[in-house]
Amino acid sequence: MKIISVGSILPFFFIISCSQAPVVDAADPKMDLVSTFDVALDRETQTNLEAQFDAVLNTQNLDDWMKHMSSKPHHVGSPWSKQNAEFIAEKFESWGFETEIETFDVLMPFPKIRKLEMVGPNKVSLQLKEPALDADATSGITEDLLPGFNAFSADGNVTAELVYVNYGILADYEELERLGIEVEGKIILARYGGSWRGIKPKIAREKGAIGCIIYSDPKDDGYFKGDVYPKGPYRMEQGLQRGSVLDMPMYPGDPLTPGYGAKPDVERLAIEDAPTIMKIPVMPISYADALPLLKALEGPVAPASWRGALPVTYHIGPGPAKVHLQLEFDWGLRRAYNPVAKLKGSVYPDEWIMRGNHHDGWAQGAADPLSGMVSLMEEARAIGELVKTGWQPKRTLVYAGWDAEEPGLLGSTEWVEYHLDEIQEKMVVYINTDGTGVGFMGVGGSHSLEKFVNEVASEVKDPVQDVTLQKRIRSRLRISGNKDAERDDLRIYPLGSGSDYTAFIHHAGVPALNIGFGGESGGGSYHSIFDSYDHYKRFSDGDYIYGTTLAKVNGRLVLRLSEADILPFRFMNMAENIGTFIESNKKLAKTVAEKTKRRNRLLNEKAFTISANPKKTYLPPKRLDDVPEFDFTPLEAAHQRLKTSAMNYEKALSSMKKGSMSAEIKIQVNRLLKDVEQAMTREEGLPRRNWFRNMIYAPGFYTGYGVKTLPGIREGLEERKWDETHLFIGEVTKALDRASAKINAATDILKAE
Amino acid sequence: MKIISVGSILPFFFIISCSQAPVVDAADPKMDLVSTFDVALDRETQTNLEAQFDAVLNTQNLDDWMKHMSSKPHHVGSPWSKQNAEFIAEKFESWGFETEIETFDVLMPFPKIRKLEMVGPNKVSLQLKEPALDADATSGITEDLLPGFNAFSADGNVTAELVYVNYGILADYEELERLGIEVEGKIILARYGGSWRGIKPKIAREKGAIGCIIYSDPKDDGYFKGDVYPKGPYRMEQGLQRGSVLDMPMYPGDPLTPGYGAKPDVERLAIEDAPTIMKIPVMPISYADALPLLKALEGPVAPASWRGALPVTYHIGPGPAKVHLQLEFDWGLRRAYNPVAKLKGSVYPDEWIMRGNHHDGWAQGAADPLSGMVSLMEEARAIGELVKTGWQPKRTLVYAGWDAEEPGLLGSTEWVEYHLDEIQEKMVVYINTDGTGVGFMGVGGSHSLEKFVNEVASEVKDPVQDVTLQKRIRSRLRISGNKDAERDDLRIYPLGSGSDYTAFIHHAGVPALNIGFGGESGGGSYHSIFDSYDHYKRFSDGDYIYGTTLAKVNGRLVLRLSEADILPFRFMNMAENIGTFIESNKKLAKTVAEKTKRRNRLLNEKAFTISANPKKTYLPPKRLDDVPEFDFTPLEAAHQRLKTSAMNYEKALSSMKKGSMSAEIKIQVNRLLKDVEQAMTREEGLPRRNWFRNMIYAPGFYTGYGVKTLPGIREGLEERKWDETHLFIGEVTKALDRASAKINAATDILKAE
Repeated sequence: MKIISVGSILPFFFIISCSQAPVVDAADPKMDLVSTFDVALDRETQTNLEAQFDAVLNTQNLDDWMKHMSSKPHHVGSPWSKQNAEFIAEKFESWGFETEIETFDVLMPFPKIRKLEMVGPNKVSLQLKEPALDADATSGITEDLLPGFNAFSADGNVTAELVYVNYGILADYEELERLGIEVEGKIILARYGGSWRGIKPKIAREKGAIGCIIYSDPKDDGYFKGDVYPKGPYRMEQGLQRGSVLDMPMYPGDPLTPGYGAKPDVERLAIEDAPTIMKIPVMPISYADALPLLKALEGPVAPASWRGALPVTYHIGPGPAKVHLQLEFDWGLRRAYNPVAKLKGSVYPDEWIMRGNHHDGWAQGAADPLSGMVSLMEEARAIGELVKTGWQPKRTLVYAGWDAEEPGLLGSTEWVEYHLDEIQEKMVVYINTDGTGVGFMGVGGSHSLEKFVNEVASEVKDPVQDVTLQKRIRSRLRISGNKDAERDDLRIYPLGSGSDYTAFIHHAGVPALNIGFGGESGGGSYHSIFDSYDHYKRFSDGDYIYGTTLAKVNGRLVLRLSEADILPFRFMNMAENIGTFIESNKKLAKTVAEKTKRRNRLLNEKAFTISANPKKTYLPPKRLDDVPEFDFTPLEAAHQRLKTSAMNYEKALSSMKKGSMSAEIKIQVNRLLKDVEQAMTREEGLPRRNWFRNMIYAPGFYTGYGVKTLPGIREGLEERKWDETHLFIGEVTKALDRASAKINAATDILKAE
Repeated sequence: MKIISVGSILPFFFIISCSQAPVVDAADPKMDLVSTFDVALDRETQTNLEAQFDAVLNTQNLDDWMKHMSSKPHHVGSPWSKQNAEFIAEKFESWGFETEIETFDVLMPFPKIRKLEMVGPNKVSLQLKEPALDADATSGITEDLLPGFNAFSADGNVTAELVYVNYGILADYEELERLGIEVEGKIILARYGGSWRGIKPKIAREKGAIGCIIYSDPKDDGYFKGDVYPKGPYRMEQGLQRGSVLDMPMYPGDPLTPGYGAKPDVERLAIEDAPTIMKIPVMPISYADALPLLKALEGPVAPASWRGALPVTYHIGPGPAKVHLQLEFDWGLRRAYNPVAKLKGSVYPDEWIMRGNHHDGWAQGAADPLSGMVSLMEEARAIGELVKTGWQPKRTLVYAGWDAEEPGLLGSTEWVEYHLDEIQEKMVVYINTDGTGVGFMGVGGSHSLEKFVNEVASEVKDPVQDVTLQKRIRSRLRISGNKDAERDDLRIYPLGSGSDYTAFIHHAGVPALNIGFGGESGGGSYHSIFDSYDHYKRFSDGDYIYGTTLAKVNGRLVLRLSEADILPFRFMNMAENIGTFIESNKKLAKTVAEKTKRRNRLLNEKAFTISANPKKTYLPPKRLDDVPEFDFTPLEAAHQRLKTSAMNYEKALSSMKKGSMSAEIKIQVNRLLKDVEQAMTREEGLPRRNWFRNMIYAPGFYTGYGVKTLPGIREGLEERKWDETHLFIGEVTKALDRASAKINAATDILKAE
């Protein structure tokens, strides 16, 4: 499903630019780090191998496969999803991989009744449908097509006044409260954006709303961004965004089998007991359909930042617009097909390097997900070609195509849950892709891999500009004035959720990466029938030069991870990034305390009342409870120990004699290194969602995809649950110490050798 | 004409919030200043006088006069303008003022031919006309109505491709250059906003464009802001903004008589030689008319910040939209009628306190200008009532209604130019109003009056909230987190241009103020036929409670200025503000140098090329010439001397024995005090515009109304004319020293007494 990329917004990027952006810790001593080649690989052998790999890559394959696989709708449960899974498996098999299609039986609702109409002040029926376009060959397909709907909406039949809630995130409800407007008993109209879509009905329901309509505003996703399809790539007026509203920040995957694989024989929750299924009906519509609804609203004019690009004055309501929303689903189990292919490692068969991309799409799903899938396939084929020359990977390589990602990461999550013990035992790294576009490489993931990714990014060239990927990104960062542009290693962003890395990094504690190109594709085909072969050819990577560049990057990552004597985990970068997470949490604690004091002082002065416009309702904000002091010193001390451990490891690594160690010693060291990420998980997980175990990163409970760093601490501060913050300062402290212990043990072995 | 106030934007405010916003100089010693009452007025006498004044004020008068005067179009040269001037004069006369109507014969073009049509790729004729509305009684008037036009546009008949240039300010042309688009030989389409309107054709012509169309985008001025007229106050789809495009930043007033009064017998420039008349045709249109033009444009999609709220993808062109623009004017001299009323001072007849508001409007002109005019009239009437009780002002009070403000401040400018010597000799303060609305008081002006204005603002109560005007503003500033909210005296903003204070403060060096209420009126009637009595009654100060509050404020200012033994000029605030102007210019010099270095370094690295999207034209920006070092130390030293002078004056003032001085000594002191502002003027004026003589403030040469502080220095930096910056650091230094000398002389007299 990936994070929506509209216009020039990057889907992911080396550098994050949100308020959680790391700041450089100037006090840290500068240390020149040796490269993976210096310590763990034979440069000539490896370079030759990679050159062979590159030489095999053929853009025509990507085009052929994309065209074939995107020729019909291929959501989980559709005939074409099964066909694509078999197609992928056959390919893997033909390239020399030991392949099986592993299946899970997962809950996936298909729409039966979809009614939405305005019933007051006048009656307006809505289209709820995307048109067939001459310019788009697959847009006329109706067989097996899922219409516009939100997966895991509740069944429901409700009629109520409408309230426009902007993006429908928590801050919007604070504003509504000041405007004196409640949504209790109402149906809310929210625009896409500002958060992952599932957050909107989740909060709406917490606030008492009985239904939720989500539309694509042209400001965020339509003509405001650029010419609409088919003239340009952007969302046309009847275009609508499908998507899941499963409460994935609680747990992703099959809602009926939390924490274990959805095999045929297992016990399942009753649908009504599944906590991640939305409890109110939710429905996505186009901006053509939203227009009459917005026109019919009265009440206060929406705040400036709430207004979109439709040619109306945005009012909030409630009413007089009144809508009737009726939804009914076929709540069947569907079979998810995960083709999984293995090349057994010749030296370390029990160390797995895994690649994955999902293959299911909402409709024809060309960009999302097939553009990434065909790149992965070409990468696998090229490795198969290497094997044909007699080469064998030292470690076991695993390539997967996930099914049922769109409705809630079902295919990958069930697989991880089912194989959890083996994965935690054997998996070294999971590298995810989820479609790709044109422009700049974006990388997120475990910061123990930051240095390693930068090594590759500083070697692979951009397919258009004659510079390395890293240099192109750096140029852009320098122009934007980003201070991190001057670092040796560009930062990778921390992972929230939104794609199949989730179960790996957040549940199993497997080091993970997520990689793709974007920023110059442009478009608004996301989760619509117009995410088609024709659209992709015209407006994205139609000649597949970025798709093959992505294969070069991932091929290098896989081949080096496979061949390295010592796995390329490096902890200086990790410690530095964690330091910035601690700093930003400390800063947040300070900000929350200051904001609290300031607001309460202004309330004491009646400043809000005095300055309010007497002709408009704008109530003072709520008084806030006092913020206690938080003691970050134990955590800072643990972070110091982690930095020391990281530095000692680097020293030991750089003074190590390459190739001097036995395979067994290497296995010992590498096991310790790969376990560092797992050491930072906590068995009991995060508050109110024990499935999420990683203490360093998590998707936000109220943002959905957006990451929270040191989430136990941060969300305690954000949600004013002070006990959680106190508790998790301690838990993160322990997590860092466990990580230090693993690193120290690896250092000790290196030094002993 | 005032600065356009759309939606919740304040037309003026105590505090400016632009980049030139003053910063508190923490190093300055804190000194508790005595009040005007403590040193220059008998508190009881004055308080009684003001209570009598307040008691007379009657909102019904404002309503009656507004209704009468706004019943017909009343631009300069119209019968109703003359009638209104006579009406005002009769009123002044009846209230005991010695009144005359002083006339000037000024150039004022009336439209004869107004043609604008799209001729390619298809033919579309435009409406160019506002509709009559049932809900607005005067909107059907056509007699003597000036249609939509821009005064002082050139005659012209041009046909060319269209280019959309956003606001048409300098920064927009830098962006166009990067997009590889030139406007040479084209007609530009600019939206209102971002600068005073006259800047748009001025720059367009410098860039080679042959015509200019300006439209009101609903994003800035229409349905995006709120409900449109007549449902709400905002600009409806055919609403259009008239207005002048005379090059007022060069010199305002009659373009044919620069620097001298436009009396019948004087020599006049030929129209073609008048430098302030635009040299290309310029025409304002509505957003209904702009829509087909924008729809027909192709070429690159406009940058995100350029896009308005029309339901189209904003393209830049050039073309294929092609327009034909034909304009022809009747370039006649029109008689401007300035009613000027005097109450002779009983003690200091040669010290003048002046109030003014213009009376001409673009159409019915209710809010702009009559709302301010009727407040001024009620203030004059109340003073007349005081006179009837036997009271006489000590100083001479002068009340004026200016004609011909809208086309370019003609009435007031000609009056000031004609009476320049006497004004510079006698005028103590000029207080301007230009319409008023509802909400917060905004005050701009000479900072020697900042403390005085705050005294009044801390006494007069808001008519709705039970707090003083100052406290209400302070509450709002505190909520917004403005650090100046905590100062004893709220800041007043420095004056640029846009109303009749211009000739007083910028040409004659008379201390001036500009005052009005706004922020809660809302609306988009500015310069349209919908600026009507009906609109004002429904959406602005319909019960005239703010209009009478404005009279209370101005009445107090006038009465205290009239009666004070020592005029209430106070220089600590002035010095503090000038200190912030110096700081912000120093900072600008630093920023310009850093930006230059940074850009040239990025060009050396080819960062712009490397990071550019190869599928789109986006050229690197131009290389910049090096920035020299500027030595601000002489200016800072002069500023230190000014601060010392101000402090010594305060000390002398606070240790002075009230009422001990003879009238003659007072005259000596007061003359010195009033001359401080004139001391900061320079005979040769500013570069390329010698009419503007004030060294501390000026309207921006490329912003129009927007102020530039220490303009000679600042515009040299902005326009990269380093010699000017060097020169004016010296000129401002001298100006401050001249001011210090006046203050020191006054101090010496006080101390000697």
